[in-house]
Amino acid sequence: METHGVSPAAERLRYILGEDDDMPNPTLFTEMDTLQQDGDELEWKESARWVKFEEKVEDGGERWSKPHVSTLSLHSLFELRTCLQTGTVVLDLEGYSLPQIVDEIIERQIDEGMLSPDLREKISFVLLRKHRHQTKKPIHRSLADMGKASGGARSPGAAAAFNRSTEDLRMKSGGYGRLRESLSHHLSRLRNKFMKKIPRDAEASNVLVGEVDFLDKPFVAFVRLAQATTLGGLTEVPVPTRFLFILLGPTGKAKSYNQIGRAIATLMVDDLFSDVAYKARDREDLIAGIDEFLDEVIVLPPGEWDPKIRIEPPKKVPTADKRKSVHSLNELGQPNGTAGGSGGHAEDEEMPVAHELGEELAHTGRFCGGLFLDMKRKLPWFPSDFYEGFHIQSISAVLFIYLGCITNAITFGGLLGDATDNYQGVMESFLGTALSGTVFCMFSGQPLIILSSTGPILIFEKLLFEFSKNNGIDYMELRLWIGIHSCIQCFLLVATDASYIIKYMTRFTEEGFSSLISFIFISDAIKKMMGSFKYYPINTDFKPDYVTAYKCECLAPDPMASMIFNGLVPVPTDNTSSLFGLNITDLDWSQLSKKECVKYGGSLVGNTCKYVPDLALMSFILFFGTYSMTVSLKKFKFSRYFPTKLRKLISDFSIFMAIMTFVGLDRLIGLKTPKLIVPTEFKPTRPDRGWIVLPFGKNPWWVYLASFVPALLVTILIFMDQQISAVIVNRKENKLRKGCGYHLDLFWVGVLMAVCSFLGLPWYVAATVISIAHIDSLKMESESSAPGEQPQFLGVREQRLTGILVFVLTGVSIFLAPVLQFIPMPVLYGVFLYMGVASLSGIQFWERIKLYMMPSKYQPDFPFLRHVPLRRVHLFTLVQIICLAVLWVLKSTVLAILFPVMILGLLVVRKMLDMVFSQHDLAWIDDILPGKDKKKDKKKKGDKDDTKKKDKKKGRADDSKDKVRNVKIYCHQLAGLEQKKPG
Amino acid sequence: METHGVSPAAERLRYILGEDDDMPNPTLFTEMDTLQQDGDELEWKESARWVKFEEKVEDGGERWSKPHVSTLSLHSLFELRTCLQTGTVVLDLEGYSLPQIVDEIIERQIDEGMLSPDLREKISFVLLRKHRHQTKKPIHRSLADMGKASGGARSPGAAAAFNRSTEDLRMKSGGYGRLRESLSHHLSRLRNKFMKKIPRDAEASNVLVGEVDFLDKPFVAFVRLAQATTLGGLTEVPVPTRFLFILLGPTGKAKSYNQIGRAIATLMVDDLFSDVAYKARDREDLIAGIDEFLDEVIVLPPGEWDPKIRIEPPKKVPTADKRKSVHSLNELGQPNGTAGGSGGHAEDEEMPVAHELGEELAHTGRFCGGLFLDMKRKLPWFPSDFYEGFHIQSISAVLFIYLGCITNAITFGGLLGDATDNYQGVMESFLGTALSGTVFCMFSGQPLIILSSTGPILIFEKLLFEFSKNNGIDYMELRLWIGIHSCIQCFLLVATDASYIIKYMTRFTEEGFSSLISFIFISDAIKKMMGSFKYYPINTDFKPDYVTAYKCECLAPDPMASMIFNGLVPVPTDNTSSLFGLNITDLDWSQLSKKECVKYGGSLVGNTCKYVPDLALMSFILFFGTYSMTVSLKKFKFSRYFPTKLRKLISDFSIFMAIMTFVGLDRLIGLKTPKLIVPTEFKPTRPDRGWIVLPFGKNPWWVYLASFVPALLVTILIFMDQQISAVIVNRKENKLRKGCGYHLDLFWVGVLMAVCSFLGLPWYVAATVISIAHIDSLKMESESSAPGEQPQFLGVREQRLTGILVFVLTGVSIFLAPVLQFIPMPVLYGVFLYMGVASLSGIQFWERIKLYMMPSKYQPDFPFLRHVPLRRVHLFTLVQIICLAVLWVLKSTVLAILFPVMILGLLVVRKMLDMVFSQHDLAWIDDILPGKDKKKDKKKKGDKDDTKKKDKKKGRADDSKDKVRNVKIYCHQLAGLEQKKPG
Repeated sequence: METHGVSPAAERLRYILGEDDDMPNPTLFTEMDTLQQDGDELEWKESARWVKFEEKVEDGGERWSKPHVSTLSLHSLFELRTCLQTGTVVLDLEGYSLPQIVDEIIERQIDEGMLSPDLREKISFVLLRKHRHQTKKPIHRSLADMGKASGGARSPGAAAAFNRSTEDLRMKSGGYGRLRESLSHHLSRLRNKFMKKIPRDAEASNVLVGEVDFLDKPFVAFVRLAQATTLGGLTEVPVPTRFLFILLGPTGKAKSYNQIGRAIATLMVDDLFSDVAYKARDREDLIAGIDEFLDEVIVLPPGEWDPKIRIEPPKKVPTADKRKSVHSLNELGQPNGTAGGSGGHAEDEEMPVAHELGEELAHTGRFCGGLFLDMKRKLPWFPSDFYEGFHIQSISAVLFIYLGCITNAITFGGLLGDATDNYQGVMESFLGTALSGTVFCMFSGQPLIILSSTGPILIFEKLLFEFSKNNGIDYMELRLWIGIHSCIQCFLLVATDASYIIKYMTRFTEEGFSSLISFIFISDAIKKMMGSFKYYPINTDFKPDYVTAYKCECLAPDPMASMIFNGLVPVPTDNTSSLFGLNITDLDWSQLSKKECVKYGGSLVGNTCKYVPDLALMSFILFFGTYSMTVSLKKFKFSRYFPTKLRKLISDFSIFMAIMTFVGLDRLIGLKTPKLIVPTEFKPTRPDRGWIVLPFGKNPWWVYLASFVPALLVTILIFMDQQISAVIVNRKENKLRKGCGYHLDLFWVGVLMAVCSFLGLPWYVAATVISIAHIDSLKMESESSAPGEQPQFLGVREQRLTGILVFVLTGVSIFLAPVLQFIPMPVLYGVFLYMGVASLSGIQFWERIKLYMMPSKYQPDFPFLRHVPLRRVHLFTLVQIICLAVLWVLKSTVLAILFPVMILGLLVVRKMLDMVFSQHDLAWIDDILPGKDKKKDKKKKGDKDDTKKKDKKKGRADDSKDKVRNVKIYCHQLAGLEQKKPG
Repeated sequence: METHGVSPAAERLRYILGEDDDMPNPTLFTEMDTLQQDGDELEWKESARWVKFEEKVEDGGERWSKPHVSTLSLHSLFELRTCLQTGTVVLDLEGYSLPQIVDEIIERQIDEGMLSPDLREKISFVLLRKHRHQTKKPIHRSLADMGKASGGARSPGAAAAFNRSTEDLRMKSGGYGRLRESLSHHLSRLRNKFMKKIPRDAEASNVLVGEVDFLDKPFVAFVRLAQATTLGGLTEVPVPTRFLFILLGPTGKAKSYNQIGRAIATLMVDDLFSDVAYKARDREDLIAGIDEFLDEVIVLPPGEWDPKIRIEPPKKVPTADKRKSVHSLNELGQPNGTAGGSGGHAEDEEMPVAHELGEELAHTGRFCGGLFLDMKRKLPWFPSDFYEGFHIQSISAVLFIYLGCITNAITFGGLLGDATDNYQGVMESFLGTALSGTVFCMFSGQPLIILSSTGPILIFEKLLFEFSKNNGIDYMELRLWIGIHSCIQCFLLVATDASYIIKYMTRFTEEGFSSLISFIFISDAIKKMMGSFKYYPINTDFKPDYVTAYKCECLAPDPMASMIFNGLVPVPTDNTSSLFGLNITDLDWSQLSKKECVKYGGSLVGNTCKYVPDLALMSFILFFGTYSMTVSLKKFKFSRYFPTKLRKLISDFSIFMAIMTFVGLDRLIGLKTPKLIVPTEFKPTRPDRGWIVLPFGKNPWWVYLASFVPALLVTILIFMDQQISAVIVNRKENKLRKGCGYHLDLFWVGVLMAVCSFLGLPWYVAATVISIAHIDSLKMESESSAPGEQPQFLGVREQRLTGILVFVLTGVSIFLAPVLQFIPMPVLYGVFLYMGVASLSGIQFWERIKLYMMPSKYQPDFPFLRHVPLRRVHLFTLVQIICLAVLWVLKSTVLAILFPVMILGLLVVRKMLDMVFSQHDLAWIDDILPGKDKKKDKKKKGDKDDTKKKDKKKGRADDSKDKVRNVKIYCHQLAGLEQKKPG
């Protein structure tokens, strides 16, 4: 058995490619033209092209096929090998025009006795025939074609005319200086959308194949020009030609020639072979290139695959770098099998990346060490935090988050007003949200975090207010002191780098927390919606025919009047008339509204009094409609309709469009659905309080000290809420570049705590769901470069602008009331529901819950499923579900105030899981706790060094190219991380 | 350049395979085991298996991967080739147990000097190690695992115990008679779900690969046993082993060995290579088999594909028959490219199939020739038309269609009652539907067609009734004579084979018609829904606070009373009290219902009189909810959740479940939504008519003759409506086996026409949309055989039972009223909407309309798009849209009665298209008109002959196998047709 250590081909290639790596080769665009008989005339017709994947001209369709993976036959590759072995190979030919190049090739063949001289004219004639390219014809032209006769009406006329003009242009520029060419480049770029898909410095390789009747053996030539040259109308796009492959053969084997042409074209766009082609010194180098290609090729068995199926380009392809480096030649690129659990080998291929918090949450041991590191890390990004915000996507993000924020402000404002007897109401809520949010987004370590009132704080305020009322302590002053204490405690936590413990927060804890918050969002949205069935009860006994029997009347409390109504007391005539004239007392009872009636002590009598028609059902329609329209529009990005950009726009603005639609519908129907009401006057909700809370004077002195104790609770609460949300936002899946700042965040939360306490505004802390929504609405994807390449998730538009705008808008909402009053509340509840559901969908925990309902053969191919037995995965999920259920139950009671402590409980549960699950399993479905991931860290460092080395090597490369490459490397690294994420 | 006419390998194979083709080889199941170190013990662990596609044991996951296409490396195939060249190849070894076989192999190797004798023991020891198979562990066991320690808790204990028991069982049966084995087969079939996926007569091939430390060169053996034998616990399933491939090698190359193992395993399940393996006479034959495989292999370039991606099995794979037949060896199996429009070559690969009506609509020229042919064709199927109806799917179909039918009967009944002054009402509609439907489904040529009242007939009745009323002619008698005339005319059409002209009905006409009917369904459903906003107007001015201001009172018409109300006349005291006591006249006005009030001449005064709360919105929720729930449940079939069977059940019963859900919701809320009301008493709607219409006596004699003229219109109308629906039902996409019967259908429609006229019932004709729904609900799909193989659409459950049941149920609906009265009408409108939308979705025309909105690069890969320029496709679609729009406009006017003539107009338009489009284009996007498809017919005949030949050849094959094969061939033929259908 041959063992193939390093094959001779690889050995040879190592030599060529290793020589000098200073100048990366240009990207190759390959065009394949075939010889066609068009009437009496012979012509070269473009039949396929490759940027990275193959695009074929559909025979009858006169259109480009979708880009697909070129599936070749092994046979054609071997035939190509033979062609290169026997045909003419000219490397570094000084060519300036096609006729001259053709002449040289023919001369050589004649010299070598491969071609009889009398064929010279004929071959030259054939090779210099006109080239017809597949150009996109605008659709509206099709109507113009209507009049045309049927027959073979493929209307080459128009296309030819178009070609001629572009050809002329190219002819003029061809062979001249670079400047003129680049001008022509720009001109045609404007004209040809396809050019955008080709890198600026690309060169072309042209493949010409065809059958002719005067040859009895094939005429083959492979030419590399010394200088890339624009050769007349040879290429579809104005890209200079570097390579030329010509295959003319006897008639009868057109298909076989085509296959060979496709084979060389596919080779030319192969990263490694194109390098070889650029650097080959002789024929043997090219053959070695083919051999290496054959070595790496992936083979599909004929019985399991239909060669007619066009394979869609994969999400990502392995880089050729691995093939280029020598050591890996034999180890990588193993087909999917790796059947047989060859010990631990298989696993180090794609071991999950260790927890990423390491560096940024290191315990410095110095006073404020973490805080200074945070500032040092964030400061350089500060300018870009603003200018990177200028993007159309930001608008939709601002609108989305703004609506979320004001809905939240109103909801919590209302609840706080109830809980504190209006000491803090909707007005304070708006003002506090605006102030805290703006400051935080401006100066914090992670400006993507959105501050908001949260449930635990609300409960705390409620308890505190009740306590102070019952004990005769001034609430606002007490609250101020708690705020001051809490602020100081936060500073202490910052100074001692206490955020370090967040490192123990693995996926288990983080997912538990964020799922819980999402569930609360969802259940709140549904509860509020259901509330409208309570506020507007439906009269289910209503029978349309008995409409006359339904009424609700306001009766005067006067017993006399009621007696009259009962017909017990005979009424004097004049009194009767006054009864109908409605002026018994000064009040006209029957004209009173429901509220007035109740106010003046009247009683409501009738069978419709407690019912409100239509509003409940209309609210439901608005709620559900907004939610489902948002979901459908979000999904629209993946549909086939309309161009990508438009689809992306629709998807980005889905929430806005859904809101607009249902606000419109609500206006159209005109029912009095509950609307968003924002305060319009700038004054405290409670008239007897001012804007500043004074620290002394109302409470005894010991209260100032004793408030230390409740402050401790608040601090823990804020610390946990804030930092867990920050962990979720800083998840590695989000691919943030600018780093995080846990200490800095906490510092500002502490400051705002004190400020808000002085101003008597509510306290604010990071809101998980809205922050996730913020990130989701700022996600970036790469523009696809070569046709067929999939866009990659690049990261998040990290900046401070959107956050600041959201909160400034929240502040000025008081003046936007005339516009905002048209928005029905059910529409906003629909948005809430969407936020909750959307923030669930990105969580692995949720994916694992779904696994319960899937037969194992239908389960998606998550990496952790390949490596952890299903029953262990299920067990892990079950533990999470139980924890969540316990939290949910506790959260619904007064114990909710101990919520942060419960999160600490989660950490303990996670620690206990170390005893039930192996570290191997946990590494896949959770993260390893710190102290056990030393090996990983080392590995990571190694990776980094590699990257650095690579970068250094490429240092001398020209600038634009380098950028492209770096972006590519970056993408691939990201993609590597992405793979660990399920989905 | 080597041209490879027929390679030597192919030549050799032709010889082996050509020899005797009388006995097809069993299907091979391949299992690959790798040598593993489990603690101190060595054992063979199952690592992958192949029925047709590869399933791999996930390393850590202890689970089977999804079946995928085996992607091999070319390298491993070459290494395998070397292995077979140098290793031991033993063909037809008489083996009865593994130790004996192993001994023989080792002996041979020692004899040939390939192995040193002192390794005998060691190798024998390794090869006879225990085999551990991957068995599925039930999920509920995972909880039992909870207590287990973490570590490497892969709990082999339980699995091993399980294996041991199955092993024992196999041991006992091994080597004994066939009977005992087949018993054990059945036992384990019950136990092992996977066995169902393996054909009954399958044999196993076992691949054993592993690395050992005592060898310094590989030990390779390929064994074919003379008799397939169950070798202890070698194989996971109780399938006898026929082939054995053993590869042991020095340590350090486990991956490489694995790849070689996968290569031979993949080869063993290849249709052609397994034939070669069964028939090979020597080593060279096997090598030739590999070479042929290599020749046919599909190659993916390394730069365009990631070998780690597991490729999902394709929808269908090409049969190996093409590879087996000699001539095609070189021409078929060309990779997807076929780049370059190599003239006409490419097209004959998959030219669209010609129109299929040919045979069944041939113009016989004999009296009633077509009718007799129809009867001759349908009679043999008559018994199976009943017993094939016994299937769970039929229940859902009956429920679905039944609901459609009664909704239709009620709607049209109501409209007919309005139009004919109740001469024909809901009662007649029910009775007529039941009678006509039952008779038609029992005796017709195409029992899948559902009869119903249709729009054109309704308009005709309306005009006829008005005419007779205005001219003093008795309507029922006139109608009877028209019916008689029309019946006779139908018989004439039947006798002269007039249905022949349906041949001119191409896709163009058919799609136009069925889209139109679908649009009418959709628009009717929406219109009816919108109607409820008119019947139950919403009071949009309602302000909850002013509930006291809303009332509606019934006032007595007495001018006196109104004057009192206006306070103009002083009322005497006693009168006042009686006004409140409510007995002025005997009527208590304020207690009257709306209807009574209007009836007794009272006037309704108040601001709520014209409003009905909640009902409109509730109706909308029910309507939209039913529709969207049906759609989502239908789609549920394609989700990942739950086992396939449950999903299919949910999908089949989606409409039923949606109806039940929303009936339940309606009950729960309890609003008085409009409900389905069916007549409960068996008597004519109009009391003054009986059940029989007498032909003479009421009209002058000339009316009997003159009614010939309107009858002609009715006949054309019925003929067109009936036959176009029949064409749509008989579409080739539906893959009907039992043939159609246009003449027979028309005959029975004629008979029913006369019968209904005598009974004074409405006339019935085929209803397109409901018939399509009927077919859709009876679609069959193949159970997937090998894991990963896609289920194929097999055809429709063609039988008479569902139709008959639907109409019998319709008949007894009169007694089902207590149940049916719970169904709200909006729910049924939702079902209507679904029917309309669903019948649209199968139409190519609809797919082409969608193309307008898709950028060409996102368009699906429809065959016609590959062959017809997009602008021609768009032009064709545009013509269809214009035709449809014209029809729609005309249909909305009184001209609707000329509807059949308009359809004839469509035929003319289609004829004219022949002048605008080339026949090539039309063949792809439409069909060729008759008289131009001679070539196609010939081709089709040729195909048929081929099939026959194949069948003959296989005649001697054993029975069960033959069935399987035939089903397979059938599937493939069907699949071939399917491909022409977009989607």
